[in-house]
Amino acid sequence: MKLATIHDGTADGRLVVVARDLAHVVPAGGIARTLQEALERWDDVRRPLEALSDGLNAGTAPDARPSAAVRFMAPLPRAWQWLDGSAFPQHGILMAKAFHRAPAEAEWPLMYQGLSHLFYGPTDDVPFVAEADDVDFEGELAVVTGPVPMGADRTRAGASIRLLVQINDWSLRRYAPLEMRTGFGWILAKPACSVAPIALTPDELGAAWRDHRVLATLHVERNGERFGAVPTTEMAHGFDELIAHAARTRPLCAGTLIGSGTVSHSRYREVGSCCISERRAIEMIDHDGTASTPYLRFGERVRMLALAEEADVPLFGVLDQRVTGPSG
Amino acid sequence: MKLATIHDGTADGRLVVVARDLAHVVPAGGIARTLQEALERWDDVRRPLEALSDGLNAGTAPDARPSAAVRFMAPLPRAWQWLDGSAFPQHGILMAKAFHRAPAEAEWPLMYQGLSHLFYGPTDDVPFVAEADDVDFEGELAVVTGPVPMGADRTRAGASIRLLVQINDWSLRRYAPLEMRTGFGWILAKPACSVAPIALTPDELGAAWRDHRVLATLHVERNGERFGAVPTTEMAHGFDELIAHAARTRPLCAGTLIGSGTVSHSRYREVGSCCISERRAIEMIDHDGTASTPYLRFGERVRMLALAEEADVPLFGVLDQRVTGPSG
Repeated sequence: MKLATIHDGTADGRLVVVARDLAHVVPAGGIARTLQEALERWDDVRRPLEALSDGLNAGTAPDARPSAAVRFMAPLPRAWQWLDGSAFPQHGILMAKAFHRAPAEAEWPLMYQGLSHLFYGPTDDVPFVAEADDVDFEGELAVVTGPVPMGADRTRAGASIRLLVQINDWSLRRYAPLEMRTGFGWILAKPACSVAPIALTPDELGAAWRDHRVLATLHVERNGERFGAVPTTEMAHGFDELIAHAARTRPLCAGTLIGSGTVSHSRYREVGSCCISERRAIEMIDHDGTASTPYLRFGERVRMLALAEEADVPLFGVLDQRVTGPSG
Repeated sequence: MKLATIHDGTADGRLVVVARDLAHVVPAGGIARTLQEALERWDDVRRPLEALSDGLNAGTAPDARPSAAVRFMAPLPRAWQWLDGSAFPQHGILMAKAFHRAPAEAEWPLMYQGLSHLFYGPTDDVPFVAEADDVDFEGELAVVTGPVPMGADRTRAGASIRLLVQINDWSLRRYAPLEMRTGFGWILAKPACSVAPIALTPDELGAAWRDHRVLATLHVERNGERFGAVPTTEMAHGFDELIAHAARTRPLCAGTLIGSGTVSHSRYREVGSCCISERRAIEMIDHDGTASTPYLRFGERVRMLALAEEADVPLFGVLDQRVTGPSG
């Protein structure tokens, strides 16, 4: 099942079911008004939503309308919690090597708490204060959970996965190392993220969902040119483990987002990267500490989509955005 | 004006206005159902709420009921954003000295993003996974903001302050230094906070509100014995500056909480501390690295209240809670 949220003038938007080929949507208002509401009443709404989805895919949903006629928001335009991991080790290895520091070590998955009161929609312009803040993108995947009790084990954590989403975790590199040094994590370096339009139930992935990981390729374009086409296959921790870590000393509420961190792959020379800073790190390693790829300037476009093997419909639809100055 | 939220079976509870002497409350449902809703429509609801408050204080509010007959939740039982500073330098100085490390340095206020989907109410039992996690309290103050645009200056940030609250930022010391070392901030070390029942508009403080700081004394008791009676007068950064820092690269939504960090004072030997770890740090400094005050065990009680000079009504009411194991 594919779900999405469309603009209706409210902060949380309106829940729709999306056809398998992404061509049509159908309002789900009779079942749940918003995705957050659906997540809070999941056991009650799942079957009715699936029935609506079946009707839409069979061409028998009376209220279906073309996707081109609606404007998508992020599936959760705001969420109560967003915890982002760093589960692709290749990214950390390259960053550490470029900056001559030891890779971050911990006996558990790396994770930070991010801003969650605002997620940009897939075609929204994304405003930043200043180009000098070194604006970067980070392509990644995330799960949306149901409620998870404090101390849940991996099995229970894995069973709490309701939906998968694709995220661009915009990052301001000027601040990242300075904030890391304080130990307090990132405030300035991590403004709001963007989310691709479609949220998938795991069964929708078929064989591309294995060991609580998505097996796909994340395609990233900068101003229409390929930046990376990176397999999402090298997650060191499955989403079950990331959720269990997040819930180790706290309960999670329905609608919690848990992210994978930047997608990265050991064949990085061939497949490219999902963020500028990783490409710059590779340049620094190759050229005595000198990076040549610039960070984003206002007006540049970033496009991301994920494809499973032999499929041509982007799993999560398309993120396609323009970076702007503070006033748009 | 004093506001609070009482249990009504919903996640966000029901907004009430509280009398100046805390003896009575009156439902504000005709004006706004929840505090979050009031914060989102502040310009429309402020005067009606003040009129209700005036009636309550004059004894003419028809729906007034005794505070003893209701059960308070946290003013915001869940919030879209909670950013906690560390604005009392004495705390950092003592911690650094005890652990022989350099104090955290940054060209801006220290701040981390905390869990905000759950705030415990003032008399709720507070469950933790294990005593071995080194359960500690942290007494502090916080502001609740209106909307703040990205890049707001201090003047605009200061003008966005809607309410003041008092927080116990429960902390698991076993994890704190390990998570700091990753640079990603705290997930395991920072479970949900508790909040005292009353949220105040700044004008309610009179002379105890100066330079965007609260001038009061935070009284902390552990199992009925005084742990600290610490003046809140040594904040290095006013709340205006903390808000401006938080908003430097992101907008803040109405209902954002911004915290002061643990209250601490340079006359710590006389006034005590607002968290166990600081008292242990003082013991370590005095006794060759040996701390004697234990962290909390299940069943212990922690009580906190703030008093302004010559006042005997606790500014924010009373936080009085019992620490329990994971199943209560």
